[in-house]
Amino acid sequence: MFGDAQATEEKRADASEEEGCAAVPEEGDVVDHERVQAGPKGVDYARLVKQFGTTSIVQADLDRLEKITGQPPHLFLRRGLYFSHRDLNVLLDGYERGELFYIFTGRGPSASMHLGHVVPFHFAAYLQAAFKAPVVIQISDDEKFFFKDLSLAQCSTYAADNVRDIIACGFDHERTFIFSDLEQIGMLYPTVCAIERRVTVNQMQGAFGVKGADCVGKMMYPAVQMAPAFPTAFTALFGGRPLRCLVPMGIDQDPYFRIARDVARGLKMHKPAVVHNKFLPALSGQQTKMSASLGGTIELRDTPKQVRKKMGSALSGARGDGSLEAHRKLGADLEVDVPIRYLQYFLEDDDELARVEAEYGAGRLTCGEVKRMAADAISALLQRHQAARERVTDDDVARFQAVRPLL
Amino acid sequence: MFGDAQATEEKRADASEEEGCAAVPEEGDVVDHERVQAGPKGVDYARLVKQFGTTSIVQADLDRLEKITGQPPHLFLRRGLYFSHRDLNVLLDGYERGELFYIFTGRGPSASMHLGHVVPFHFAAYLQAAFKAPVVIQISDDEKFFFKDLSLAQCSTYAADNVRDIIACGFDHERTFIFSDLEQIGMLYPTVCAIERRVTVNQMQGAFGVKGADCVGKMMYPAVQMAPAFPTAFTALFGGRPLRCLVPMGIDQDPYFRIARDVARGLKMHKPAVVHNKFLPALSGQQTKMSASLGGTIELRDTPKQVRKKMGSALSGARGDGSLEAHRKLGADLEVDVPIRYLQYFLEDDDELARVEAEYGAGRLTCGEVKRMAADAISALLQRHQAARERVTDDDVARFQAVRPLL
Repeated sequence: MFGDAQATEEKRADASEEEGCAAVPEEGDVVDHERVQAGPKGVDYARLVKQFGTTSIVQADLDRLEKITGQPPHLFLRRGLYFSHRDLNVLLDGYERGELFYIFTGRGPSASMHLGHVVPFHFAAYLQAAFKAPVVIQISDDEKFFFKDLSLAQCSTYAADNVRDIIACGFDHERTFIFSDLEQIGMLYPTVCAIERRVTVNQMQGAFGVKGADCVGKMMYPAVQMAPAFPTAFTALFGGRPLRCLVPMGIDQDPYFRIARDVARGLKMHKPAVVHNKFLPALSGQQTKMSASLGGTIELRDTPKQVRKKMGSALSGARGDGSLEAHRKLGADLEVDVPIRYLQYFLEDDDELARVEAEYGAGRLTCGEVKRMAADAISALLQRHQAARERVTDDDVARFQAVRPLL
Repeated sequence: MFGDAQATEEKRADASEEEGCAAVPEEGDVVDHERVQAGPKGVDYARLVKQFGTTSIVQADLDRLEKITGQPPHLFLRRGLYFSHRDLNVLLDGYERGELFYIFTGRGPSASMHLGHVVPFHFAAYLQAAFKAPVVIQISDDEKFFFKDLSLAQCSTYAADNVRDIIACGFDHERTFIFSDLEQIGMLYPTVCAIERRVTVNQMQGAFGVKGADCVGKMMYPAVQMAPAFPTAFTALFGGRPLRCLVPMGIDQDPYFRIARDVARGLKMHKPAVVHNKFLPALSGQQTKMSASLGGTIELRDTPKQVRKKMGSALSGARGDGSLEAHRKLGADLEVDVPIRYLQYFLEDDDELARVEAEYGAGRLTCGEVKRMAADAISALLQRHQAARERVTDDDVARFQAVRPLL
């Protein structure tokens, strides 16, 4: 099963990777490293899998993960929220042969973090615990400097704050390295150079749509984002061992790793494996992902009262004229309903979720009741998060950021 | 006098700098950061000054330098070998008001260094002594990696060797910092980012002729070469003082600093001042500069015997059929003669040089005699250099490379 899937995947990946990494579907949704734009039912992920030449994550993958790790797959997997991959099977084959891998994730720093930001961190922390794997987390100060109107000093201030939220997502301090690429560029730079010698200007323009009038930083930066996907960037951490790398991320970041996978052979290293998550939608609907600049966010520091108020404004899929009578009769369209989507991400109990979906779809649960349930699930998560963040000390921050062996 | 020159220069510079830094003269010579290609009489420097929008260095500049420094100008200045500048006058105005400046020069590492390589270092060492100025010297490992077929490890090995030759050029160990950009990228990177946010892809393509099929490193690297022209790259050395910078260099490197000057305003820093030297010709003639890949070099490690032999092959300007009789009658064409050019660089005595030029031009000195004189002058320099290199200890190397205050 996995053998077949692997062969198919490799053929697909090769085809896609040699076609110059077109990142934007020909029509319909727009999904790239800078934008996500879709219809009211959200991004057509099945189509994206085909378009990007990735492989769907299927039940057999979940069964294999459960068998290897001895624990049930994370709910993000059970609910299909991590839905696509490249070479996950190859990574697991290696793992079963005793080959270690590490996990790489990261973020561009921002004034404050929202609920959408913690999805990849929660998933990375799950993978770390399940596989006892080292995790490296890059805070890309320079990215925001090139792509947004922020000073480097502002980015650094944000980074220092964001690190505390990231630690609060539950990483193991003995196996996790969190770093600013601005501070650790010396460690990354030889790998950045190795990538930049192997990627052409045309490839960068094709993959990221960099234009002639754009700043040259947009042409340079992608190699900085890719570099941590190769263990040469972390000889001080991994002692020069050629570990495989797994990158959990939103599928909008895929172009970076398509190129990283293209250059891997030239670098004589393993292609990084990737797993893609669906986007947590904005409060206003699934046309876009949750984002500070668009459509409304739930912030990690929001109180239960704020969450409840924001959830009140979330796009509902309840049919009819808004009357209880019409709702009882017509039910709700779960495909556009935002609170249901949030419950899929954050309500732990599978049976309870199934019950809510059925009852709400049939009009027996009201939109207000579902919004309250979503608000409660999110508030519970945020309160755990806020308490964990509260417990993060300056020493913790220093420990996670120290360059030291992780194996 | 200087006021006028300054105004003219600024007008010219603005015009040139806004026109997108066309680095290649419309016809005739080719002079850019990758190539020098000229006629048998060498590059038409007067035309280059016009083309690049720089300012000629004239006698009044030499008089001013002598007045300020209290010592005669270096022979490279007396002989017109440093022939062009941007904002040297502005730099000297500042110096007379008590504003310190530092000197930035560098090199792409190579297996061994030749005579052409020491010209900017000897000149920088003269400037350092004359102005008691700090000097920063960048060894650009990554440049050779992107532009030549060398591994980063090879570049680093070469760099470690080249540092000893550079130290032997006579730098003051209390005021000089020699660094590999690969090792010190952490120090440079915020300034690199600041430049890369202010330069567009179009500008880089215009100035350096980077093509779509070129590696993206060629697009990224120029900012690394420019960064040391701004004191923000060296806060640990200059304590955050906004020093002016002077860059002595071959005029083929000018495109880097035209762009650096363009972005200076955006960075809220002084435009770096530059002085340009003519190229030391290859043994085979002035069609190209001395270069390991073209036309023959004299290596810093050559013995007097090797120098004499190589000089025997140097292109001579002796007229006629090669017979002594014809030479006595027709004399020599000094404009194409390579040994005379070397004497202009390396024979200290102005009167002696004038005598040799007159006698040789008139056919009274033979080509063989002039070649021997050039060989002797060069061998004397090389023997001093080799002895100085011999004295460079590992401690010296460490001292020059240590990050420490230079003011």
